[in-house]
Amino acid sequence: MVRWQPGTSERLQAAALELFASQGYEQTTAAEIAQSVGLTERTFFRHFSDKREVLFHGQQLLVEAFLAGMAAAPDDATPLELVAAALDSAAEFFPDERREHSRLRQAVIDQNPALQERERHKLSVLAATVGDALRARGVTEPAATLAAESGATVFGVSFTQWISPGETRPIAEIERGVLAELRGLTAVGPGPAAD
Amino acid sequence: MVRWQPGTSERLQAAALELFASQGYEQTTAAEIAQSVGLTERTFFRHFSDKREVLFHGQQLLVEAFLAGMAAAPDDATPLELVAAALDSAAEFFPDERREHSRLRQAVIDQNPALQERERHKLSVLAATVGDALRARGVTEPAATLAAESGATVFGVSFTQWISPGETRPIAEIERGVLAELRGLTAVGPGPAAD
Repeated sequence: MVRWQPGTSERLQAAALELFASQGYEQTTAAEIAQSVGLTERTFFRHFSDKREVLFHGQQLLVEAFLAGMAAAPDDATPLELVAAALDSAAEFFPDERREHSRLRQAVIDQNPALQERERHKLSVLAATVGDALRARGVTEPAATLAAESGATVFGVSFTQWISPGETRPIAEIERGVLAELRGLTAVGPGPAAD
Repeated sequence: MVRWQPGTSERLQAAALELFASQGYEQTTAAEIAQSVGLTERTFFRHFSDKREVLFHGQQLLVEAFLAGMAAAPDDATPLELVAAALDSAAEFFPDERREHSRLRQAVIDQNPALQERERHKLSVLAATVGDALRARGVTEPAATLAAESGATVFGVSFTQWISPGETRPIAEIERGVLAELRGLTAVGPGPAAD
């Protein structure tokens, strides 16, 4: 029996990011990641199915945060209010002390087309899950899909801004600004000028 | 020198779709596709780089249709009006007589995760290209990305509806309805339920 070590996943994640960033994702093996923090490859595979999984570990928790935000919203919330509640809930997932970690992770992903694709897939699964939750609350089509996709877009744009160099605002604040921009964009009328 | 045969691409595409649908995408080779219409494998590869390319052949033309629609829009068009112009222009790409072809193609894609991923990638390239065109017209961020992503979403939702069983409306009409639904969804009302 191996004794459960609290924080092992987190140590492996931090070590993996450092190695991916310094020597390249492709060039790094699971065994190296484990060894760099004094663990065995076997221990690595007890925590992650492969090295890619280290980067996408939190996905299920992120999806659950979106769903929890919607579940806590009032019964009469509009589809976009539900999406706003989901975004607020997901923001708790990205406290300011995680920003550097997220920046490093994104730099690794930006170097690798297969990881970029995995990231796109992650956002599309997120949108599909939010769409299912909206339909389960009685939102009809195409409103459910439009609201869910808009939510994923607002999240993606906000996250990109949150990790951009020099940005210091919390992600929740950025999300609210982007959502307001979306509302302004689609408002009937002349809207923001293109020139 | 090989004489240019008009319609060869189209014949190969139709033959490929038929084989993909009847015996499966994975099980079909480029040589079989060519042979089924009395052509050689070499001729196939003169038209398409691989069998996947047969399914994604029109992508560049679709992107160009989006861009042409935006280029023809008035100088003072809002970002969402530019997107609407792009969608209208792209609709010419999907006349009613192409609907059955599109249905068959989608059925093949729905069977294969790698093809689904390619399709997602196609939509993300479309959104990125529209975003670039909006920025080139002076639209700032995040409005440009939001408008471009919304356009790709409206297109995706409309296309899915256009090929759904029993649907008979032209895609341009469906697009206009979906865009109106998006405007209604994000109309300023009670506001975000964030607090």
